[in-house]
This record gives sequence, C-alpha cells and structure tokens, in this order.
Amino acid sequence: MTTLASPLAALRADFPGLAGTWHYLDTAATAQKPQAVIDAASNAMGRDYATVHRGVYARSANMTVAFEAARRKVARFIGAAEGEIVFTRGATEAINLVAQTWGLANLKAGDRILLSTLEHHSNIVPWQLLRARTGVEIDVCPLTPDGRIDLDIAARMLTREHKLVALAHVSNVLGSTLDVKRAADLAHGVGAKILIDGCQAVPRLAVDVAALDCDFYVFSAHKLYGPTGIGALWARAEILDAMPPWQGGGAMIDRVTFAETTFAPPPARFEAGTPAIVEAIALGAAVDYVSAIGLDTIHAHETALVAQCRDALRAMNSVTLFGPEDSAGIVSFALEGVHPHDLGTILDEEGVAIRAGHHCAQPLMDHLGVPATARASFGIYNDEDDVAALVRGIERTKRIFS
Amino acid sequence: MTTLASPLAALRADFPGLAGTWHYLDTAATAQKPQAVIDAASNAMGRDYATVHRGVYARSANMTVAFEAARRKVARFIGAAEGEIVFTRGATEAINLVAQTWGLANLKAGDRILLSTLEHHSNIVPWQLLRARTGVEIDVCPLTPDGRIDLDIAARMLTREHKLVALAHVSNVLGSTLDVKRAADLAHGVGAKILIDGCQAVPRLAVDVAALDCDFYVFSAHKLYGPTGIGALWARAEILDAMPPWQGGGAMIDRVTFAETTFAPPPARFEAGTPAIVEAIALGAAVDYVSAIGLDTIHAHETALVAQCRDALRAMNSVTLFGPEDSAGIVSFALEGVHPHDLGTILDEEGVAIRAGHHCAQPLMDHLGVPATARASFGIYNDEDDVAALVRGIERTKRIFS
Repeated sequence: MTTLASPLAALRADFPGLAGTWHYLDTAATAQKPQAVIDAASNAMGRDYATVHRGVYARSANMTVAFEAARRKVARFIGAAEGEIVFTRGATEAINLVAQTWGLANLKAGDRILLSTLEHHSNIVPWQLLRARTGVEIDVCPLTPDGRIDLDIAARMLTREHKLVALAHVSNVLGSTLDVKRAADLAHGVGAKILIDGCQAVPRLAVDVAALDCDFYVFSAHKLYGPTGIGALWARAEILDAMPPWQGGGAMIDRVTFAETTFAPPPARFEAGTPAIVEAIALGAAVDYVSAIGLDTIHAHETALVAQCRDALRAMNSVTLFGPEDSAGIVSFALEGVHPHDLGTILDEEGVAIRAGHHCAQPLMDHLGVPATARASFGIYNDEDDVAALVRGIERTKRIFS
Repeated sequence: MTTLASPLAALRADFPGLAGTWHYLDTAATAQKPQAVIDAASNAMGRDYATVHRGVYARSANMTVAFEAARRKVARFIGAAEGEIVFTRGATEAINLVAQTWGLANLKAGDRILLSTLEHHSNIVPWQLLRARTGVEIDVCPLTPDGRIDLDIAARMLTREHKLVALAHVSNVLGSTLDVKRAADLAHGVGAKILIDGCQAVPRLAVDVAALDCDFYVFSAHKLYGPTGIGALWARAEILDAMPPWQGGGAMIDRVTFAETTFAPPPARFEAGTPAIVEAIALGAAVDYVSAIGLDTIHAHETALVAQCRDALRAMNSVTLFGPEDSAGIVSFALEGVHPHDLGTILDEEGVAIRAGHHCAQPLMDHLGVPATARASFGIYNDEDDVAALVRGIERTKRIFS
C-alpha cells in the first residue's frame, strides 16, 4: 500500500515537519506547516523586518502593506470584508473577546446562551466566566445519536430570552459538521446572534460567512497550516462598530489624555499593542497555500481518507467508532480494553501520532461515557499509508493487550 | 568614522534585517532579530513542530520540554521562579491581564492608582478602562526637569488609598531610568503593589525582579531581539495564585462541566488555548543570545552611543534634546522649524531609520509641549557609523529647510 493514489500526497514534501516516515494523524490538534509558510515567517523576521503602522521609513511602510495584505487575504478566504477581521492570538482569545466586549455590553441576568454538548472548552468556559459576571443562563443543545448538534431540538429550545447561539462548525472530536445556515436562521428567528467556532472547519471546508449568515466566526492559524500565536475574529461590521474596547494600549486609541481617551474604529480598536506582525504575514502565506490547493479538493481528499479509515477500523473486532459517517477529517474511536493513552503510546513506537485524551471537550466525553477517546485526524499531507500504519499499530496493540 | 570601536559592532552580521548599509535607529519600537532567533523559530515551525502539553507521542513531549525550557530561561533572565512567568501576546496584554484580573478583584471605587506623565499608552489605557468599570481614581506623578519620574513628589502623593503604582522602568521616549527599588519601597510603604513596564529595560539593563522588589513586571519579546506575538508577565507567586482567571478555554482548566468549571494553577490558568509555541521557543533563543553578550556589556555599549549622539546633536544649532543625559539607549529630540515626520522622511532617503511621532505617549508630548518628537534609539548592532549617518542626515535636512 505504498501507491500514492491521492493527488495531494505529493504535497508531503512541502512539509519539513514530516521528513522521514512519520505518520502524523494529529492535524486537528495542530497542522504541520509548509515551507512556504516557514519562509514567509523567516523573511518577515529577517530580511523584511520592521514595525507596522508607525514608521516613517520605507521598510516599515512596506511591512504595513504586507501586514494589511494578510488581513485582506484572511477576509477574502472566508468571504468577509477587510475591516471586519480582527487579529487575535487564536480562536480562544477571539471567543473571549466577544464574551467580554459584546457579551458584557449586551447580555444581562435572565438572558440565555445556547451551546451544545460537543463544544470545545474554548466555546464553553468564556461563557461560564460571563455567566459568573452577569447572571446569564447557559443552555446545552443535545446531539443526535450519530453525534451531530441536533438542530431539531435547538429549534424547540430557542426562545426570545436567547441572545446568543455559539456552536462549533466542525466538532474537534467527532468531525460532525453543523448546518450553519440553518442554525443561523434558527438563532435569528428568535432575535439571537450566532457565533461559530470555525477552528476545525476552515482547514477542511470552503467557508463563506456571508452565505452562512452568521454574526461571529473565529479560527486559529495554527490549525490552518499557519503559525502559532495568531488567529482571527470575524464579526459583521455593524456589530464590531458597536463593541466597546477590551484591551487598552497603543494602536487602539484615537487620542489619550489622563482625563479621557477616545478609541480607534475597528479592527484597530481590538488590536492593542504591537501586533503579531510576523504571524499575520505567515498566516497570509498559509491562506495562499491552502487556497491554491482549493478547499473542495482538500475536503474530498480528507473525506476519502476518513471513509477508508472508518471502514478499516469497523472491520476490526473491538473498535468502537464515534461520530457520523461523513465526519470531516476526524475519526474518534475506542479500542476495547485498552486505554486511549496506552494505545497512543504504542502507536508512537510505530511512528504513528494520534491524540488520546478528552480533546478539551470533557462534557462530550461525559456524554459518550468515556474519560477519553483515541483520535486520528487527517490533513492535506496524509494518505492511505497513514491509514494502513494506524491499522497495523492498532493490531499490534491488540496483540500486546490480548 | 568607519572604525568599529565598539566590541559589539561585529554582531551586526548576525542580523539579516541589517544587510547592506541601513542605519536602523528604531530599536525602541522593535528590535531586529539575530539569525539564531530566526533559526529557532524555523526549526520549531518545521523539523520539530508539534503541539504541547497534550500529545502522547514523543515529538509533542519534546516540544513541551522545549516550550517549558523557554519559560525557565525567561524566568532566570529576570530573576524569577519558573511558575511565576505567564506568556502573553506582549507587554500590553500583560498589563491588561493584571488590570482585568488582579485589578477587578482587588480595586474598588475610591481606591487610587499612581501612574506618571511619561507612561506609554499601554500603561495608561488599561487603568482607564478599569477606572470606567470600578470608579478607581488615577493620579499622575510629574517628572523632574530632565524627564525622570519624580519620586520625591511620588513620596508626597502616595496615600493609604493607593493600591497600585504602575510605572515604566525605562521611558520609551526619553530613555530615563526609574529607580525601581525606591519606587517599590514607596509603594509598599503605603501598602500598594507596584507594576513595572519593563519593555525598554530588559533589552538594555540587567533586571532582577527579586532585587527590585516589585510585584508585577512585564515585557515584550519583540523589543528583546525576539519574535512578535509573545511577551511575559511576571508576578509574585502568591499574587498569581490569588488572581482569578481572565480568558477561558483549553489548557487553563482543571475540570469542565456545564454546571461548573474549576481552574488550573498558575501559570496555566492564564494561558487559555494553544499557546504561542514557536514564539516561546524563539523568545528563549533571544534570551540566550542577549545573555551570552551580557546586559552589562550591552548597557555600556548603548550608553556610549547615547553620549556620542547627544554630544553631536548638542553641537548642532537648532536641535533641542529631551530627556536626561544618562538616558538608556534612547535619544528624543526636535529640530527647529522642521516637523519630526519631515525629518524622518528625509533621513529615510539617507538610509537612516528613526521614529517620528507621539511614541504612544501623548500625555508626555502634551507635557513637552510638542505634538511629536524625533527619536533615535540604539541596539546591540549599532555603532558610531549610525550616529554619524544621523548627524549627516540632520545637516542635510537643515539645508533643505533653510
């Protein structure tokens, strides 16, 4: 099984993190970076380095152009307008930003937020911190038997008291994909806003926030084959315009006196301090790289690998598969009688890297009735060899534990 | 004047951003990065890349070791304990973190905060945002005639109502250096805590937070020859322990249910989400680089350049110098009849990069009675040639405007 049937498998050579025969199946945790992204970061840190937005010299002006070009690339990538993209440290910070600005300004005791059972901690804890401050209530939409957010139930749960619906576009554990447009319609039907955690979606699906009709969309660069230390918040311009500042400092102000300070318009209002200049430019390079391949091609590639993986695991005795058949790039499973950590450790000896744990989704683990799952997640550089290596490793683990 | 009298001038070759004859005098805005830092980032993004704290496979365990080793390097660099270093996006976020966690938990209407006239916006606006929420009052310590924070006046201003003193260790405009130990004694004398903005200090002076006896110390990596997108907050362990969380998400939790979430101890409690992994490792490399040279050597080098620069500018007609004679690495000045932006633009044509503007310190500009200053700031890679080029450029500007 060394034939590279997939048209994307040749891309593997672009990734210095994948030199040798390592079978990296942890892209849902973080994606490896192509040389193009590393080079973009190196050039921005070296040959081209300067600060942005402030310098009167040419190098700084050029860097500002590159930085803002990266913002435009991100905007175009998800169908947004340039001024609607706020650079954050990652999706987690983006959700906290929304909770602590829009949330504090708009939600009060008695208002309700609808989440779901499968949310990542980053889309649970910020709302709990807001609940502690404001007295807002949190409701939890259950899942269908195959692990999707059950929008039929959501439709019955939503009331006029709901001011926000916050859901994952793609589950980081189950790979189940949300019908965002339908969820947005349901939210808007009761006058609520909808925030979508797109961390696992943007590397796997074509995303157009206008077509999805959501209000907030967040993602991290490091899961999109880009750098650590940066992510993006998108929000509709009129929502961003009305949001108060969160962090104070340079770049987000209009005029500072000790008596009173006035603030810049978005996105600057939400980007206090020297930004992650190099990271923004490298994120722009990641967007270029992924866009050149095309999300439809990537989605088809990962869907084929997931089908192959699920079929192979199903054929083995004693493997339980979680999540829907059409999961997006992610396969969570359990091996009877073997703790996922033990499985992960033995697979590592075979050169296969999976994730074993609660995946920052403890409420979902409680729902599944397990402390942890094993998770294989695919990226653009994976192929059938990786699936075969996973299967071989599981078979060896079964022999060790039998 | 092409002799390299300085023992550090040979380091210039380590900096790919300084190829050619560019005279970079904007290190107070952001420092160029040595190849060792760029290589550390490239390897962390490529060959060695994996997530931290979670993976059961060896690469992730190795990355976790490297990430936490970087935290130890930062701690050792400023005389702190490892568990007292919180990675933030930069100094700005670090100050906002203190304001929105320690500040919200400990300050109430009627309490007072003492700042100074020369603070950067990042050490003003977070406290104003806290004032808007809590009703805390802000007092402003004036400066001595030569531009130092006047601690004699601070001693008279401080009262038992003051709960926090927040001051810059080194002014980003004037280069004036605070006697932190005396300021800390004054603060502690009335029962207040003291936060020090060390952005301009850590690249220029040996810093030992224990000897300085402060309570919070913050700085940004990108001014310390390190990467963008990361900085550090240091706080005494007992203060950090008592601080409530700020941002919610993965990694900062102990156990999550929808009913209740418990939080991890510091520093994890304050590092929600996937951290800036690559940036932390590159910051560790920057600390190694700077430490190998030695802060005393760097300080002597920059002090000599500042003296040379001030002497040369003083000898010119129509230049006004701001700040004290012993300013640390930074020289702000005005050229009579020429707006600093025009000066900066003409200098750029001569290959000399300075900063012209309010330097994110508008209250200080108001105090100086100018809308902006021209600022030349030095780093380890500068030498007498850079001073000579600045002087030539100013002379040309004078001819153009005469």
